[in-house]
Amino acid sequence: MMHHSFELILANIGRHISLTAEESSYFTQLLRPGHYARRELLLMEGAVCTDFTFIVSGCMKSYLLDQQQKEHILTFAAPDWWIADINSFITGNPGNLFIQAISETHTLALSRRNQEILLREIPKFERCFRILTERAFAASLQRNIDAMSLSALERFEKFRLQYPYLLSLLSDQEIASYIGVTPSFFSRMLKKHHLK
Amino acid sequence: MMHHSFELILANIGRHISLTAEESSYFTQLLRPGHYARRELLLMEGAVCTDFTFIVSGCMKSYLLDQQQKEHILTFAAPDWWIADINSFITGNPGNLFIQAISETHTLALSRRNQEILLREIPKFERCFRILTERAFAASLQRNIDAMSLSALERFEKFRLQYPYLLSLLSDQEIASYIGVTPSFFSRMLKKHHLK
Repeated sequence: MMHHSFELILANIGRHISLTAEESSYFTQLLRPGHYARRELLLMEGAVCTDFTFIVSGCMKSYLLDQQQKEHILTFAAPDWWIADINSFITGNPGNLFIQAISETHTLALSRRNQEILLREIPKFERCFRILTERAFAASLQRNIDAMSLSALERFEKFRLQYPYLLSLLSDQEIASYIGVTPSFFSRMLKKHHLK
Repeated sequence: MMHHSFELILANIGRHISLTAEESSYFTQLLRPGHYARRELLLMEGAVCTDFTFIVSGCMKSYLLDQQQKEHILTFAAPDWWIADINSFITGNPGNLFIQAISETHTLALSRRNQEILLREIPKFERCFRILTERAFAASLQRNIDAMSLSALERFEKFRLQYPYLLSLLSDQEIASYIGVTPSFFSRMLKKHHLK
């Protein structure tokens, strides 16, 4: 299991920078393996997000509870993705988000402190995190753009194409929250278009 | 003017990395000064965003037109901020966004090609762009979170505190679009709470 974990994260990093065997080993020693049961919380609202977390297997979501305790999903993270409350992670202030396992999930966490050590010892990781952050930012902005310019049906079709892996793991309620419609609207939409 | 321009951008960079005089000069030679009249477009929907643009003076906005040609504002950029269609910039694909000057604006543009040269020649700029991207990403996510968890009045109050410089430059319509309400709702809200 452990060996397999590192393979995936090293391939993820290797898409952006080349590491020697020694550098790879230095990096993986800074990671903290984690294991979460379905519905277990990795992060609670009000806590400081100290880790940048890589998903090895399973799936997580980050979400916000509004004043009516309604859940708004910001991101899903499938295997080979990273998840964090980025605001809290970069400022060190308590965050607004929950991060929860949707299915049994294995993770590798890089703490802010270990990230700093890594960046000091192997500065080319700056490049890797720069690119990872750019892509996550771009994906997040694209979701905002989609929310403004696509219909709920178009957003669902895009979601199905982008995250086929997630479809079977998520409840209809979670998908509805992510595409920004009520569960009842979502259920009527599925029926009307003979989807799912 | 030119000297002053570089002072602001060098201070912006200097908050994240230390540059020698030689490195500063190498960097500024890669920048392309620009000047935009009020309402002039820096970028049109469907074009490739080739530049990461720093605002020296004035103000710009990025926005999307939906299928009803309604304008949705994604970001404002005041002096000392960067603006780009990040999706288009990192992929090289045509983008969805317009970027337009709200008032007369002086800019310094770093093209993707020059950014690549810069990162190759002075790798510590990776750190700088990593941090700039993290902050822009965090600000963008915070706006999503605010849209879900704050009232329109609270979003307006936050906007006034965060961007006092922008208040006098923007039309009510632009502020309404940014905080995500209709112009008529916004105008009723201002009256009701004796604001502005």
